[in-house]
Amino acid sequence: MDGNHSPLSHHNKGHSPPAQPERDGSFNYDIESTDGGGAWLGSAADALLRYDEDGAGGPREPLLRKRTMNTTSQIAIVGANVCPVESLDYEIVENDLFKQDWRSRKKQQIFQYIVMKWTLVLLIGLFTAVVGFFNNLAVENIAGFKLLLTSDLMFKQRYFTAFLAYGGCNLVLAAAAAAICAYIAPAAAGSGIPEVKAYLNGVDAYSILAPSTLFVKIFGSILGVSAGFVLGKEGPMVHTGACIANLLGQGGSRKYHLTWNWLRYFKNDRDRRDLITCGSAAGVAAAFRAPVGGVLFALEEAASWWRSALLWRTFFTTAVVAVVLRGLIQFCRSGKCGLFGQGGLIMFDLSSTIPTYSTQDIVAIVVLGVIGGVFGGLFNFLLDRILRAYSFINEYESSLYICLHKLKFNFNLQHHIVFRFWSAGEVLHTRSFSPITVSIITSACSYGLPCTPCPVDAMEQCPTIGRSNFQCPPGHYNGLASLFFNTNDDAIRNLFSYGTENEFRMSTLFIFFIAVYCLGLVTYGIAVPSGLFIPVILAGASYGRIVGTLLGPLSDLDPGLFALLGAASFLGGTMRMTVSVCVILLELTNDLPMLPLVMLVLLISKTIADSFNKGVYDQIVVMKGLPFLEAHAEPYMRNLVAGDVVSGPLISFSGVERVGNIVQALKITGHNGFPVVDEPPLSEAPELVGLVLRSHLLVLLSGKTFMKEKVKTSGSFVLHRFGAFDFAKAGSGKGLKIEDLDFTDEEMDMYVDLHPVTNTSPYTVVESMSLAKAAILFRALGLRHLLVVPKTPGRPPIVGILTRHDFMPEHIHGLFPNIHKSH
Amino acid sequence: MDGNHSPLSHHNKGHSPPAQPERDGSFNYDIESTDGGGAWLGSAADALLRYDEDGAGGPREPLLRKRTMNTTSQIAIVGANVCPVESLDYEIVENDLFKQDWRSRKKQQIFQYIVMKWTLVLLIGLFTAVVGFFNNLAVENIAGFKLLLTSDLMFKQRYFTAFLAYGGCNLVLAAAAAAICAYIAPAAAGSGIPEVKAYLNGVDAYSILAPSTLFVKIFGSILGVSAGFVLGKEGPMVHTGACIANLLGQGGSRKYHLTWNWLRYFKNDRDRRDLITCGSAAGVAAAFRAPVGGVLFALEEAASWWRSALLWRTFFTTAVVAVVLRGLIQFCRSGKCGLFGQGGLIMFDLSSTIPTYSTQDIVAIVVLGVIGGVFGGLFNFLLDRILRAYSFINEYESSLYICLHKLKFNFNLQHHIVFRFWSAGEVLHTRSFSPITVSIITSACSYGLPCTPCPVDAMEQCPTIGRSNFQCPPGHYNGLASLFFNTNDDAIRNLFSYGTENEFRMSTLFIFFIAVYCLGLVTYGIAVPSGLFIPVILAGASYGRIVGTLLGPLSDLDPGLFALLGAASFLGGTMRMTVSVCVILLELTNDLPMLPLVMLVLLISKTIADSFNKGVYDQIVVMKGLPFLEAHAEPYMRNLVAGDVVSGPLISFSGVERVGNIVQALKITGHNGFPVVDEPPLSEAPELVGLVLRSHLLVLLSGKTFMKEKVKTSGSFVLHRFGAFDFAKAGSGKGLKIEDLDFTDEEMDMYVDLHPVTNTSPYTVVESMSLAKAAILFRALGLRHLLVVPKTPGRPPIVGILTRHDFMPEHIHGLFPNIHKSH
Repeated sequence: MDGNHSPLSHHNKGHSPPAQPERDGSFNYDIESTDGGGAWLGSAADALLRYDEDGAGGPREPLLRKRTMNTTSQIAIVGANVCPVESLDYEIVENDLFKQDWRSRKKQQIFQYIVMKWTLVLLIGLFTAVVGFFNNLAVENIAGFKLLLTSDLMFKQRYFTAFLAYGGCNLVLAAAAAAICAYIAPAAAGSGIPEVKAYLNGVDAYSILAPSTLFVKIFGSILGVSAGFVLGKEGPMVHTGACIANLLGQGGSRKYHLTWNWLRYFKNDRDRRDLITCGSAAGVAAAFRAPVGGVLFALEEAASWWRSALLWRTFFTTAVVAVVLRGLIQFCRSGKCGLFGQGGLIMFDLSSTIPTYSTQDIVAIVVLGVIGGVFGGLFNFLLDRILRAYSFINEYESSLYICLHKLKFNFNLQHHIVFRFWSAGEVLHTRSFSPITVSIITSACSYGLPCTPCPVDAMEQCPTIGRSNFQCPPGHYNGLASLFFNTNDDAIRNLFSYGTENEFRMSTLFIFFIAVYCLGLVTYGIAVPSGLFIPVILAGASYGRIVGTLLGPLSDLDPGLFALLGAASFLGGTMRMTVSVCVILLELTNDLPMLPLVMLVLLISKTIADSFNKGVYDQIVVMKGLPFLEAHAEPYMRNLVAGDVVSGPLISFSGVERVGNIVQALKITGHNGFPVVDEPPLSEAPELVGLVLRSHLLVLLSGKTFMKEKVKTSGSFVLHRFGAFDFAKAGSGKGLKIEDLDFTDEEMDMYVDLHPVTNTSPYTVVESMSLAKAAILFRALGLRHLLVVPKTPGRPPIVGILTRHDFMPEHIHGLFPNIHKSH
Repeated sequence: MDGNHSPLSHHNKGHSPPAQPERDGSFNYDIESTDGGGAWLGSAADALLRYDEDGAGGPREPLLRKRTMNTTSQIAIVGANVCPVESLDYEIVENDLFKQDWRSRKKQQIFQYIVMKWTLVLLIGLFTAVVGFFNNLAVENIAGFKLLLTSDLMFKQRYFTAFLAYGGCNLVLAAAAAAICAYIAPAAAGSGIPEVKAYLNGVDAYSILAPSTLFVKIFGSILGVSAGFVLGKEGPMVHTGACIANLLGQGGSRKYHLTWNWLRYFKNDRDRRDLITCGSAAGVAAAFRAPVGGVLFALEEAASWWRSALLWRTFFTTAVVAVVLRGLIQFCRSGKCGLFGQGGLIMFDLSSTIPTYSTQDIVAIVVLGVIGGVFGGLFNFLLDRILRAYSFINEYESSLYICLHKLKFNFNLQHHIVFRFWSAGEVLHTRSFSPITVSIITSACSYGLPCTPCPVDAMEQCPTIGRSNFQCPPGHYNGLASLFFNTNDDAIRNLFSYGTENEFRMSTLFIFFIAVYCLGLVTYGIAVPSGLFIPVILAGASYGRIVGTLLGPLSDLDPGLFALLGAASFLGGTMRMTVSVCVILLELTNDLPMLPLVMLVLLISKTIADSFNKGVYDQIVVMKGLPFLEAHAEPYMRNLVAGDVVSGPLISFSGVERVGNIVQALKITGHNGFPVVDEPPLSEAPELVGLVLRSHLLVLLSGKTFMKEKVKTSGSFVLHRFGAFDFAKAGSGKGLKIEDLDFTDEEMDMYVDLHPVTNTSPYTVVESMSLAKAAILFRALGLRHLLVVPKTPGRPPIVGILTRHDFMPEHIHGLFPNIHKSH
């Protein structure tokens, strides 16, 4: 074995290779760089000395000329919270335990698995539908009460009291939403779709789908929508569905003794991924009452991996949602649900009949699509800026807060008047200020509405749509109130309505469009659960009606149809979904014949907007720092080979390893996979046995099946001691930790046979494989670790491990600053 | 290098390994087994001596105890034709030429590519829509003429003449359809969906998407449908769309000087796959006027690989189809299209309003779904039996034919009366007989319809739906004629119609159901283009009406709705598609509110039928011997490792190889990929350079850039001589062949540098990788060759190559007959 042989010196590359490290060839004590944060440590003793207490394990000294540290951060923003992220592992760990378990699995157990999976999917549909219905019920009742109260006061001519009541209600609701979000689960802020998307791409953070997130998502969304914000409950519903699916897929809870034998089959990332995909589909289905749209949404936007069986399963979930919702709404028809009327779940039954459309109409629609695409792209651009501004303000506020705290204690100013005042305000977290500001602005916008005289033409009646007589003397009407002083769902219904050419004046629509566009942008950044669908549809519909009114002389189409197409153009321009948005709109409006028109608008606006920037969710994923793996490889990756980005030397274990070495390696690194290499005398030549996972090592160590001698066993001892389910993946945030285990010095000097728990079939690439192709392999198979093996014989059997972070553009550009990003 | 080292001796397997071959370690003259037909040959001279002339290259003697020959056949049935199949290669060949080309590609060329791709997709939509419209126009006119003629004759009481005219028309049309199918393109027989599915899975045969197939598919389908067969034009439309896409994606034709620089970008399997996926979606969209359904069909049934960009592209194609069809139908409204009425493209505008459905209705629907699933599964079972019977009859007839021919010439019986008679019949190929038989049966069924007296109840009018007064005296009506004596589209419309409870009697529906179910089964096997959608919908709709009539007292739902749900249950039971069938039915009937019911029925019937057998298209793919790769690995593959199925020693080339060796290897094998291994003095130790493709070798050899010495060059000579597009993949059935090249003896002794054309990043697996995981890798990335590398250092750098056929169950069971199939 040629230990001093540099692993990278043999392959011929097109570019100049980075300087090579000099290594001593000892495998056992080097620290590998799985899941980032790699460290270079010469020996075990050295390692412990240099151990960085914050757990990042970064190098203290730049010992290598090549930067071996993975520069991508291991943290990301989930909701409004910064937390560490992990990768998920969709690979099947084919170790002896798996094989034994799999061989012993009987028909009955396979039947159990299938029955359980369908039952879980059924439950996901059921619970999501019930939550979706409850959301609507609560919103309709709270917002309805608020609007009724205000109307009553106005009817009594007490306008100022009415405004105070209205604004006060909004403020209290907004503060409540912001408070539960800030104190219970900051991860529940925002739409949640980017987080779910990242989870389904393989990025895990405990808080993404935690029970507290679910709680805040449901109630925060209800409070936020009731508070009259320009935000939707659709995005949060997707997150809610995913949370429900995650809870059901946890395989019970040991803590509360809620484990059931049948549930253990779902303790792996693959099955959880399937369930959460179903959950996100169910969320859309429940939010829009669009079962097919839900399936397509999961396929087009949410999921990163898809297979035919999943199509069927999501379809089943959304069918359940549709049936349950229908039943619940039928129940409410009898009037037992308070103020919950037909407006509950948005469902705009237009059933227009467009007999024909002429070339002029098509031209008008193309123009609509082009401008809609521009506005959509602009929306994404502005949203990005605004979110960055919010994040800057938050940081500033936080540092101010810390600064003031320091001041207070350093100078003993606790009783100074400024600090007393400030301490009172402390109850409201800094992040709660922006919601309150936005709430006041929104209330002011929707209340300070001017009245307009009715048309003098005696032929025409005074418009009566919505609450048009709001606050107005006889002979006047208030067009804006029918849009503003209303729930968002009703406003959309009014905009989409047919045969209402004269209800809305140009100025009304224009003011509403500007206000909604801006409020939508500002509202998304505040730390409450907030969806983007409704603001975009609202802005798009008013934009569409404006275009429809302007082009009225040219086109025969109804302004209501233009509003629908405008909404489609905005959705296409911001979210960049095509088929799913199209089907959702169809299912919302029950208007199949206009399908080709909606398709056309969506394609045009998406194409236009794509030339400016990325879709809004992709943009937010990037901004939040979630390490999302794209399905395609970046072009510059073709200039690199796998060996180029493998960072630093790695820790590997011998097939039969000393317990102390394993414990130490687990303590000093946060890595999740370690290669196992058999060396003489265990084998004739050093050979790669496979990959062992941290979680499996921890379970193995906790069983203390140790040996005095370094000899290879048949593994039967381990196989008897453990079942495969002992090694099943615990839920996010659970599972054994190395700190939980204690070993005596005697035990530390004993040996443990790793063969039974080693995955003997890890995926590998040769070090000279182009990075682009390695990335495609990594992504297509949903891996967490990809082993890099040497090209030439006679070298140590493993060069390094590639993980998700090694494929991130930031990491690659950190290693090779001169590589062309745009090639 | 340890040449005598068996590649399989080092990994520990759970089962006993097969006996190992003894090899001499010489790499250059062994024959590898890529794309099957591997042969074991000791040396080059030996190889030529033993070369099997039929091209199969099978071993004459069992030199190995392990069967090294790939036992899967390299031929499959396409349509009604047996032809050789090849694999497609979706891997990016990253050789020097590719890298050079890719680096030199400017923005302008990328723009060209994008513009061309969208243009092609637009053209696919356009042409498919036009062809779909033309199909309908022709069918409506031909069938309309036939029915009018018959009706006129009947009106004149000339019943026998009418029958002769009707039967004669049908017979002539059927014979014409069978004749063009048999003589021009036997590959056009049947639905075509299994073939398209196989193509999109990576199985290529020239005739699948050839221009002649397209021609016969269009005209054969028109003739077949006009002939009154119980078959649809929907399946053939999918195949037609795929053929159109393939023709457009060929990158022009060198033969007819129709090459265009912009088209060369599409000369690869990846882009062709995308276009053909769009084509199949366009086919469904044109057949059913269901744009969203088309996209979902392509996703759920046709495509094996999918990515988000494709969703958008197929969506665009189907939108184009929808718009074009709408325009053409509008044009026909003015009466310029002969007998083409509103019935043209099936579009059953039901717009029913189901306000509520009760629990009883749900129970009724569940029962409907369960029985529908059973009937659907039975249909698949019977279809399989019938197709096997047809194939047996064909073989028998063919052998009889050959036998008689031999007899005729051997005994000089040309003038014997029997043979004269027979020779006249010879004009009609044996395969044309079954269409004629089926045509006569169908004519008899649809003409010999009994009349029924009108209901005596004066309150009820005599039913008048369809052609109910067919052939009947006053006071009588003919319920069967409204279904049988009609085009299939009109029959479906009649069955789906609402408020027609009393139009169809139970006996009528029952007879029709039995007749259609049987005729549908019998008709699919005959060698004409025939779709399965229409027979299944017809049978399902009549079944649904029967159930609806029976359960009438229990349920409030309309029998028309039951007919629709019955059709859904049959579609779910036979085709096992869920989302796409659901959306297609919605788009056909324009009836969104019944979505949950259709979903429920589909899920139930699919679940029930799945417990019996596979979907009809999967079944046909297997029966035709098309080597389809499933997305999941079979369980028994987990008991095997990649090294187990690698068949025999392989041919590899040195980085700089003697021309003679290459020519010889290409001549004696049909393999498509050869590993390139650099050995001293070209490198320090033997190392794997990559994989070189047969087609690339042929182009390289045709350029005759040979050298006198075996030295490594910079490759610039080759890079100057060729552009990347010279190596682009030619269309199916085209491209250079080794027989086209001639070399002098002097040239044969020269050397050629393979490095510039060698793909340096082939995907590899270690020989100890479980076969299941290798299969998943192979399938997920769409590979044609997967290199197997040794596990231990110090051995030759490549063990073998896995290809599609090595993963086929037949091959694995040939190698390991004792492995449990059902584990």
